[in-house]
Amino acid sequence: MAMFLEKVKTPGLAHLSWVIGDADQAAVIDPRRDIDVYLEIAKSQGARITHVIETHRNEDLVSGAPMLAERTGARVLHGPNADQEIRYAETVRESDCIELGNLVLKILETPGHTDDSISIAIHDENNPGDAVGVFTGDALFIGDVGRTDFYPDRAEEVAGKLFDSLNKLLALGDQAIIYPAHGAGSVCGSGMAEREFSTIGHERLHNSMLQIRDREEFIEAKLDEMHYQPPYFRRMERLNAEGGSRLPTPMGLTPLDPETLLARRDEGCDVIDIRSPESYAGAHVEGALSLPLGLITAYAGWLLDPDRSLVLVADDLDQAGEALVHFGRIGYDRVEGAYSGGMAAWAASGNAFDSVPLVDAGDVSQRVGESKDLWQLLDVRKKEEFDRTAIEGACHIYLGHLADRLDSLDRDKAFTVLCGSGMRAMVGASLLRRNGFDRVDVFLGSMGAWTNR
Amino acid sequence: MAMFLEKVKTPGLAHLSWVIGDADQAAVIDPRRDIDVYLEIAKSQGARITHVIETHRNEDLVSGAPMLAERTGARVLHGPNADQEIRYAETVRESDCIELGNLVLKILETPGHTDDSISIAIHDENNPGDAVGVFTGDALFIGDVGRTDFYPDRAEEVAGKLFDSLNKLLALGDQAIIYPAHGAGSVCGSGMAEREFSTIGHERLHNSMLQIRDREEFIEAKLDEMHYQPPYFRRMERLNAEGGSRLPTPMGLTPLDPETLLARRDEGCDVIDIRSPESYAGAHVEGALSLPLGLITAYAGWLLDPDRSLVLVADDLDQAGEALVHFGRIGYDRVEGAYSGGMAAWAASGNAFDSVPLVDAGDVSQRVGESKDLWQLLDVRKKEEFDRTAIEGACHIYLGHLADRLDSLDRDKAFTVLCGSGMRAMVGASLLRRNGFDRVDVFLGSMGAWTNR
Amino acid sequence: MAMFLEKVKTPGLAHLSWVIGDADQAAVIDPRRDIDVYLEIAKSQGARITHVIETHRNEDLVSGAPMLAERTGARVLHGPNADQEIRYAETVRESDCIELGNLVLKILETPGHTDDSISIAIHDENNPGDAVGVFTGDALFIGDVGRTDFYPDRAEEVAGKLFDSLNKLLALGDQAIIYPAHGAGSVCGSGMAEREFSTIGHERLHNSMLQIRDREEFIEAKLDEMHYQPPYFRRMERLNAEGGSRLPTPMGLTPLDPETLLARRDEGCDVIDIRSPESYAGAHVEGALSLPLGLITAYAGWLLDPDRSLVLVADDLDQAGEALVHFGRIGYDRVEGAYSGGMAAWAASGNAFDSVPLVDAGDVSQRVGESKDLWQLLDVRKKEEFDRTAIEGACHIYLGHLADRLDSLDRDKAFTVLCGSGMRAMVGASLLRRNGFDRVDVFLGSMGAWTNR
Amino acid sequence: MAMFLEKVKTPGLAHLSWVIGDADQAAVIDPRRDIDVYLEIAKSQGARITHVIETHRNEDLVSGAPMLAERTGARVLHGPNADQEIRYAETVRESDCIELGNLVLKILETPGHTDDSISIAIHDENNPGDAVGVFTGDALFIGDVGRTDFYPDRAEEVAGKLFDSLNKLLALGDQAIIYPAHGAGSVCGSGMAEREFSTIGHERLHNSMLQIRDREEFIEAKLDEMHYQPPYFRRMERLNAEGGSRLPTPMGLTPLDPETLLARRDEGCDVIDIRSPESYAGAHVEGALSLPLGLITAYAGWLLDPDRSLVLVADDLDQAGEALVHFGRIGYDRVEGAYSGGMAAWAASGNAFDSVPLVDAGDVSQRVGESKDLWQLLDVRKKEEFDRTAIEGACHIYLGHLADRLDSLDRDKAFTVLCGSGMRAMVGASLLRRNGFDRVDVFLGSMGAWTNR
Repeated sequence: MAMFLEKVKTPGLAHLSWVIGDADQAAVIDPRRDIDVYLEIAKSQGARITHVIETHRNEDLVSGAPMLAERTGARVLHGPNADQEIRYAETVRESDCIELGNLVLKILETPGHTDDSISIAIHDENNPGDAVGVFTGDALFIGDVGRTDFYPDRAEEVAGKLFDSLNKLLALGDQAIIYPAHGAGSVCGSGMAEREFSTIGHERLHNSMLQIRDREEFIEAKLDEMHYQPPYFRRMERLNAEGGSRLPTPMGLTPLDPETLLARRDEGCDVIDIRSPESYAGAHVEGALSLPLGLITAYAGWLLDPDRSLVLVADDLDQAGEALVHFGRIGYDRVEGAYSGGMAAWAASGNAFDSVPLVDAGDVSQRVGESKDLWQLLDVRKKEEFDRTAIEGACHIYLGHLADRLDSLDRDKAFTVLCGSGMRAMVGASLLRRNGFDRVDVFLGSMGAWTNR
Repeated sequence: MAMFLEKVKTPGLAHLSWVIGDADQAAVIDPRRDIDVYLEIAKSQGARITHVIETHRNEDLVSGAPMLAERTGARVLHGPNADQEIRYAETVRESDCIELGNLVLKILETPGHTDDSISIAIHDENNPGDAVGVFTGDALFIGDVGRTDFYPDRAEEVAGKLFDSLNKLLALGDQAIIYPAHGAGSVCGSGMAEREFSTIGHERLHNSMLQIRDREEFIEAKLDEMHYQPPYFRRMERLNAEGGSRLPTPMGLTPLDPETLLARRDEGCDVIDIRSPESYAGAHVEGALSLPLGLITAYAGWLLDPDRSLVLVADDLDQAGEALVHFGRIGYDRVEGAYSGGMAAWAASGNAFDSVPLVDAGDVSQRVGESKDLWQLLDVRKKEEFDRTAIEGACHIYLGHLADRLDSLDRDKAFTVLCGSGMRAMVGASLLRRNGFDRVDVFLGSMGAWTNR
Repeated sequence: MAMFLEKVKTPGLAHLSWVIGDADQAAVIDPRRDIDVYLEIAKSQGARITHVIETHRNEDLVSGAPMLAERTGARVLHGPNADQEIRYAETVRESDCIELGNLVLKILETPGHTDDSISIAIHDENNPGDAVGVFTGDALFIGDVGRTDFYPDRAEEVAGKLFDSLNKLLALGDQAIIYPAHGAGSVCGSGMAEREFSTIGHERLHNSMLQIRDREEFIEAKLDEMHYQPPYFRRMERLNAEGGSRLPTPMGLTPLDPETLLARRDEGCDVIDIRSPESYAGAHVEGALSLPLGLITAYAGWLLDPDRSLVLVADDLDQAGEALVHFGRIGYDRVEGAYSGGMAAWAASGNAFDSVPLVDAGDVSQRVGESKDLWQLLDVRKKEEFDRTAIEGACHIYLGHLADRLDSLDRDKAFTVLCGSGMRAMVGASLLRRNGFDRVDVFLGSMGAWTNR
Repeated sequence: MAMFLEKVKTPGLAHLSWVIGDADQAAVIDPRRDIDVYLEIAKSQGARITHVIETHRNEDLVSGAPMLAERTGARVLHGPNADQEIRYAETVRESDCIELGNLVLKILETPGHTDDSISIAIHDENNPGDAVGVFTGDALFIGDVGRTDFYPDRAEEVAGKLFDSLNKLLALGDQAIIYPAHGAGSVCGSGMAEREFSTIGHERLHNSMLQIRDREEFIEAKLDEMHYQPPYFRRMERLNAEGGSRLPTPMGLTPLDPETLLARRDEGCDVIDIRSPESYAGAHVEGALSLPLGLITAYAGWLLDPDRSLVLVADDLDQAGEALVHFGRIGYDRVEGAYSGGMAAWAASGNAFDSVPLVDAGDVSQRVGESKDLWQLLDVRKKEEFDRTAIEGACHIYLGHLADRLDSLDRDKAFTVLCGSGMRAMVGASLLRRNGFDRVDVFLGSMGAWTNR
């Protein structure tokens, strides 16, 4: 039985978790809430999950640690100095070791991103000495380092701690492979590489934050960073101290016919359309919010009230089931059912539908020259994207902030919403429509099309 | 090991095939081209497929009999009097018996639908005497009987033969369960029940064609029927006499990026958009024909040249792989690849896209009163549907005939295309657009919405 | 959307359950405890499970009705006159109707097997009048009728009731297809056909019990029948009145290494070897009971104390997971883990193992002539099998009764255990070994080999 | 779309292949013959396989490169100086580069194991300069280096070349992750680590062969190594120059009943029992060779004539299908069918069976003291294992050589066969039995049990 180390990637959140083991024993690092994947990996290796280790308290997703412990009897280990007591975990500290066959996992306290952040060096007893690899949590990513904006009062202090933690990681040696908790696309960093394999050595040479060798300079750089913090983060932190519950099962998702969906909507459920932006543009249920499957984990936490029930409009029930899992990963459990019969059947049953016009680069470039009194280009990307390149005359409101900033917009104007490709723009457009903006269209292709026009 | 009898349903074609067996042996009745499903069933029963029986030469799909025989060594059995020699099959005749453990399959010649049509009575040696069930092929359906329009010169003769064949089936007794080759939705009959389980007894009481007890009256009723015959039927007949080849594997389907898809289009490939009509309405590749997945087997045979290569626009590669199978079932093997990245990414790469406006019942009822000179309502349903109920002023061209009838339409007019729900209408609309009609929209919901308005 | 009717077969218990539906609604008849299969079928049909119907209180398995109701919100319907209140169900009575689209399910009270037994006739509103089919529960099987030995005090009365119920079913007409709750191999009947499809008409002609047209004669025939009643039946009845709990998930089954398995054994867990009899014969854990996967549902209820925990020896974890489901279906939930590393690795870790010699027909025929003082042939089949044909000099103890009858056996003798093939014999042999019988072997091939020698 | 790099591990052969890609393009390194896994990975990443690279001509398995090229249109690249022309490949040389999005794969000629061996450095255009990783083929493993015994005439020369090649790899820098073509358990090296992740840095520090910094000393060490070379290696080399054919599909594997299996045996098929050694010990088909599933790729090449057909005895058809794939990976395509009904049913049909007695450490230690004239302990492990530790008085013949060395054994003696655990011993015992040795048993647990006794 070989030593094994497998990656479990959660797209959307760009979350990485890991299963490592030897000799019939396995440890899971930073499990997500839908834990069957870890059980499957352990089973295929003939191993028993004996340890679950959290590199830090998660703010962006529901931790699967308590569920995994309940299912397997594994011990949950968590770093020291957590903001709140982690009810389901034991505390581990610097130099604590966990043995799995001939593997030794050694705890390194690496605070900065959070006070309780740890890294976990991997040693092989057959070749004792240097670490083979290291789980770096949210301390060190490939191409970036952890964000340090979660303690606004202690901003300098925690940035400095991260600097020290990174030095501790560098001291492991160039040969150590790094296994971080996030990859490209995560909100937990902004400069992460597209590449998901690297070593301390490669990062030492190429990670731009590791090129800053002066502590003060590093702190300054961190303080200059700007990160979005969706409102659900606070809820996740509390929930992950208490320990979340098992994910509702997609198998039980109720198929809804048009009448039932409308009845639920009228009872106060949010109607969420998880189909592609072009499907939504073509035809959608009146009042539905566009939130394509791939954007759920990134934007539900900004746009949706966790206490309201959701009903979905989906291409099919499998897609709706996937959405239920995505919602569940960030703590939205109240998915009541899904309509997936298509908008042709929807309309054929006598139900009303709505459309959103799409415009292209030609249309936009024509209007850009027109009067600003009647028409407004609205860019909903992140500020850093907007700052890098934007269309003249466009106003910027980040999609996550749009709901709170509607009053700043003139309802008498027509709006063309844009983003990078049109996906987020459609979410923004649907939000405007739900709030009574009548003349809204979307620039399909958005900045991509604009640049390539 | 119990005797088993399992149904394999092929949606779209509404084709039913069957696996029956006992004591480690199995027979497959009327296999389709993608045969793994039969092998799976046999494996799960621990049985070896020893016989493949065709109830008639298939005109609407590629027979899987030769592939199944090649893979398993099974004998292929086919009725007598085929129009062409069936190269891969042995001929069976009235009263021939096939034994599978304690099951006996007994051949009944039941011509009419085709000259070579047979039915297969199922007897259980443990209870000899009356048939337990009967595979009725295209002779007797649940709620209907087989069409008899394939020999225009001998229309009366073959309708009379079918009458006699049905009497032979009725003579099996009320207790016999029937297992036909098609269910509701097939083009091989028009009055088939939504229900897929019945007996000779229940059909004797309720099948309207079986209520006609006079031979001449029956012949007259059959001659009065109107059936569409897509052009690919002739090709299928020839191919199924020779024996088709194995289905191309969906696994090898090439993902295309936008540039490659466009290059293929410019080299002469047909671009087929298999997504939902609302997705196509929202945004689609210029020049693409709308043909939603569920309509492929019904309309590709009308609309596409089997000698041209196809490239697909799909929601994802799984859907494209499914489409490849659907195309393959009716002998369209030249699917070269698929773009499935979404229209937002498509446009973001700087590529042009097109949309089709959707209108609703309110829009249509407003226009119905307007001048006919500028605007035409075009109904593409089957004639029998149109005859049952239609919107005043609509002109009717069956979707299968539309390509040949474009010259009868006034290109200066605007067109609103409709069908039952909007699915087929979108196919028709895309056909008009590809042929230079500029002002085309689709009535989403179509007759369903009109009736429920 | 066609009307659908799908069979779910549970091997071992030979239990049949059914999903029937139309127009987005589905009903499940007699669900088992592992209910995902019903949810999958409903999903694939795009239907919502709105009704769960029990044809009678189950005595041989845990009903899945309450779990399915909890997951889907469906109503549970149960016949009148149950021995105990069915807590999770509403009572339905003669002629009550349930509508699912154009399908109508009509209740027929058919007591006899139990007082609360109902049958459910299937009508199609498109062809009103005669039933298309009927769910017959444990009243009428294919080739047999329900057992009536559950009320020993009222034996004649309930046999007579069954006679009347069967007449009610016959009155539905020959055309009605029958869908019973059990197939061949079930302990709920003994003459069931290997065939799983039939009609009222075919049964009227061929079911031997339906050939008895005199009520008194029928009652007499029923009173003459002999049925085994495993002790867990009583527990199932109580549990199914209360409503059982969800099945433990096979995913969480703990892999055990040899040391842990032995530790559990020493703590009092039963070690159950679910591998083939030849694997057990070759090498097994000392003290393990042989209970091959396929025999669990038939014999665990006889041999195992539901209050003791179990640890399994399996070929692999998938097989152990299957066993967990089989145990769960009959209410044995305490499966603590499984060893699946093979006996070579087991022994290589320094652990002891045991073997059981296998003998063949030659060996047995040689010994049959030998002195009876030293050697005893022990046949553990059902009495009806033994009565039909047996080896001279063999003594008979039914496997289910063996544990209680050990004292009747002379421990100084050598024993050769036999059954039909050697499967049940190995279970019996392992039971003898666990109880201190030293010289036990098994006749592999058993009566099959004897007959074919 | 992140850059991806996924491992595909083939147990048994301990073969590692890799899929690496970026921006819709993927390359596969050293594909095995069953290629669907690569297509699945590419599909899940939305990428098109454009390149297949072989690090050397494979001698231990059938290369999947030509099949993958045929299915995808990918180019196949192979190093220079192959012994025979590789018909399906283009030659690449030092410093050639392949671009996949922002990834650059750079060829390093690293001969030694074979003349055509290459390694492939992975560079990320976003961080140009140092390699992120390197595919090392059979040049450098984790914990070992490639064997250099394939050119006996040029033994020193090629060992020296490997030394130089390893230096070239070390020059890539400590930060480079290594991705070799084999892991622990492969016959292509003997000291490989159980761990499957490492870097140039870690190997530089811990790989014992890399500690030898003197070229002559390294050559000497390589010349001292002893490797087994199964006879099928020569066939693989030729076949992999020509290009093998597609793997037969497990789906079509014919289930055999006992009679058919025996008929095939009598026609000259080899009967191969792929079940566990304890199942074989319990009962097996007379004349069957024991070759448990997990040993097929390691020993079929020694024991089986590739021109003879095989029939299998398996636990179930899935296991037989797996075996078909294992056989196919090393070029044994003639698997004609499988019996999987169990030995109880086998014997119950009146067929003879055989058993192999198992003995334990107690039995063996008792006999060790006994006379050597009647009984012989036979150890079939590799010589290096035997040399490390053995039981006094045991004679050693490597399992791969046993068939050729039967004449050296005294047929009048009894034999107890042993290995590490009993698996290989059972293969050896079955070989003896097939060759007329009457008194053969197996030490279950073998050296493991002996050491732990």
